[in-house]
Parts: sequence; structure tokens; C-alpha cells
Amino acid sequence: MAEPIPILGGTGALGYGLAWRWAQAGEGIVIGSRKLERAEEAAEKLRAEVDGAQVEGLENADAVARAEVVFLTVPFRAQSETLNNLREALREGQILVDCTVPLAAALSGKATRTIGVWQGSAAQQAAEMAPDGVTVVSALHTVSAPVLAGDGPLDEDVLICGERKADKARVARLIERIDGLRAVNAGPLEMARIVETLTPMLIAINARYKTHAGIRITGLPEGDHWK
Amino acid sequence: MAEPIPILGGTGALGYGLAWRWAQAGEGIVIGSRKLERAEEAAEKLRAEVDGAQVEGLENADAVARAEVVFLTVPFRAQSETLNNLREALREGQILVDCTVPLAAALSGKATRTIGVWQGSAAQQAAEMAPDGVTVVSALHTVSAPVLAGDGPLDEDVLICGERKADKARVARLIERIDGLRAVNAGPLEMARIVETLTPMLIAINARYKTHAGIRITGLPEGDHWK
Repeated sequence: MAEPIPILGGTGALGYGLAWRWAQAGEGIVIGSRKLERAEEAAEKLRAEVDGAQVEGLENADAVARAEVVFLTVPFRAQSETLNNLREALREGQILVDCTVPLAAALSGKATRTIGVWQGSAAQQAAEMAPDGVTVVSALHTVSAPVLAGDGPLDEDVLICGERKADKARVARLIERIDGLRAVNAGPLEMARIVETLTPMLIAINARYKTHAGIRITGLPEGDHWK
Repeated sequence: MAEPIPILGGTGALGYGLAWRWAQAGEGIVIGSRKLERAEEAAEKLRAEVDGAQVEGLENADAVARAEVVFLTVPFRAQSETLNNLREALREGQILVDCTVPLAAALSGKATRTIGVWQGSAAQQAAEMAPDGVTVVSALHTVSAPVLAGDGPLDEDVLICGERKADKARVARLIERIDGLRAVNAGPLEMARIVETLTPMLIAINARYKTHAGIRITGLPEGDHWK
């Protein structure tokens, strides 16, 4: 049987939206949370919403053990503590997909601004904090949580940053299991400095257009870039 | 007769590409350059390439006088000097559309990185340097110069940042005279910090996909946002 997809912070808006879409695509899900009870509640909700959903709720550290590729969807203010708590749980060879965005809102600032992260980006902070042998890939900053959790079709791109194409390709395959999402290779992990700032830009656009905007890259050749 | 469109640095790749598209759309163009001779050469080239093109070549300071809305398409390393030289030429009520991107390549760094501008962005630097009463609007960072200068159709967005919607709307109208470009309101001028970094991100994508990528914002409502 295929590995399930652990989503740390899977009780939050982005994490739960991803879980909902992946469950519909037939993927097994592990919803991770700081508290077992909240993870189990979210798993139960997902089972009620998606017929035949393969989903369990676990504490983050237990969720991490269930697969090689793990998604981290906690808010930025919880990223550092979460990673500290996972130092013993994360193991060599794992890929940690960091989806956090350093919105200034984490420090009572605006959601249309970021705060400066010393390492350059939230993803680079995650890479510094992750144990040796754990690879960080950055993705999923521009897909709106309400759109993911809604019933409408998706039609947008997900920009993926990371050092090695093979690692990004593994993440891309999972992301493209969700109908209407295309994974685009946006370069090395340092490009997360740029990609993470697309979230506040989209939030500014959302306010002006009363919508939930996303991103498309135009001009890409047809065919599968990830082969 | 409608005002022409002055393009400072119109002999460069982006500026000339814009001139070429606008001339095809029937707009009058003023190509500005530091040197009159180069401006005249570019104007002559454009007349040869586009039947009936209304175009003249002038020194930047003279080009500025021809219309209220002026486009600045010089490379970042020339932005500051150009604006210094235009202090007497720019006049109250004008809109200066800054298209420059602080690529690290300006200081022998990579085109996939930016350098930090103290004011936050090249556009904010332009706003600080522009005379009182001159409004800076930021735009046109994500449209590839080779694509503009080519024969192919365009199908992408231009993100516009600035303080007042009315000013952005004037710029949007000009940009949307070019077939296949949609102008999107990306927020106040400070958002140029984010939008300017899309250029190095697209350059990184171009290297991976062997293409000239652009940006589309998904999920925007139909209808004219600028009315």
C-alpha cells in the first residue's frame, strides 16, 4: 500500500484543505497536531466529509513516522517550536515540505507584509533547524486555504523550491495528485525568499478584488518537467 | 490627438519591446535615451518595423516633457543617475512608471537574486528621488522583453503597485492597449518590494524550462476592475 501523507498542523485551514483534496484523490492522510485530541477530531470530520477517506489523527511526532515525505502547514509563529519538538522524530532521508509564510501578522503586523527571517525565508529556517539528513523543500504558499477546502475546481500552479530536482519531483507528484494543481520548479531553496512573499501579495490582491487569488506561470512548455 | 507614450531607456530590451507593441496598437511613442543619437536610431528602427508608427527619438529630459505618464525602463544601475538628471525635467502632476528591478546582476551578482534597496524597492527609491508632486507607479516587471519584442501573442498579467487607484488606472489603460496584457492592482507602492522580486524568480524558472515565463493571477472576477 502507498505511504500516507502526514500533514503536521493538519487541523489548520491550509493543512485541512490539503487533507480534504488528497482524501478525495484517494490518498491516505495522517493529520498531525500538537494535541492528539484535535488531530482525531479533524480526522473524524474528514471521514464524515469524504466517503471512504483513509485518514488517522496523531500527534505530530507520531505522524512524522508514517511516511518519508511530510508536510508542515503550521502558522509561522508555531514553526520554530514545532521543529524543535520534532528533532527526535524526524529521521535521515525524510523530506520536510515547509509551507509556512513569515507574515508580519505573526507579530501583530499586517498580513500584506512579511517579517525578515535571518536565514532568508521560513523554509531556510526550517532547513537550519531540521536534523542532519532531512531535506527541506518549500511549496504550497499560493494556494488559498478556503479554495482548497471548497467544492470548486482548482486551476493554478504551486511553486516548489529546493536543492535537488529529484526531491522536488517527489513532492510535485504528491501535489499533482490534487486535480487542477500544477507543480512548477522555481529553483533552489533560497528562492523561497521570493515565493513566500507571494502570499502577502495575493492577500493584498484578494482585498482589492474580493476573491481568493492564486498564481499561474505562463509560457511553460507542454509536457512533464518532472520526469 | 492623444498624448504619446514616452519611454525613458526606450533603446533597451524592455523599453523597445514596449514601444514595438504600443506602436502596433496605434499609440504614439517617444523613445528617450541618454544620447539623442541612440534614441533617433531606435525610432528609425521602429518606423521601419511597424507601418505607420508614430515615433520620435529624444533625449530623456525632452521625452519627459511630451506626456503626463512616463515609463522608466532603464536598468537598475542607471536608475538613480537617470532620475538625478531628470530633476528639472519632471513636473508636478506627472506619473512616473518605474519598471526597474534591483537584480543582483547590477553589482556583478546573479540575475536570480536581488540586492537590498534601502527604501525597500527600486520603485520606492524612485519615489524618494522624484520631485514633489510626481507620483511613482510600479509596473511591468514580469513581462519578458524577448516575448514583447517577438511576434507571438501575449497572454499574461502586469502587476501594478501605487498609492492611488486612479493613478494606477491611468497606467493600466496604457498597458492594456497591448493585446494580451491584463493589468492587476497589486496594492500600494510598498508591494513593489514583492513584485520586483518576481523577475529573478521568473529568470530562475526560465533557466529550468528553457522559456520566457510570465505571471497570471488566477481567481480574479470578470469585469473591469479599473472603472
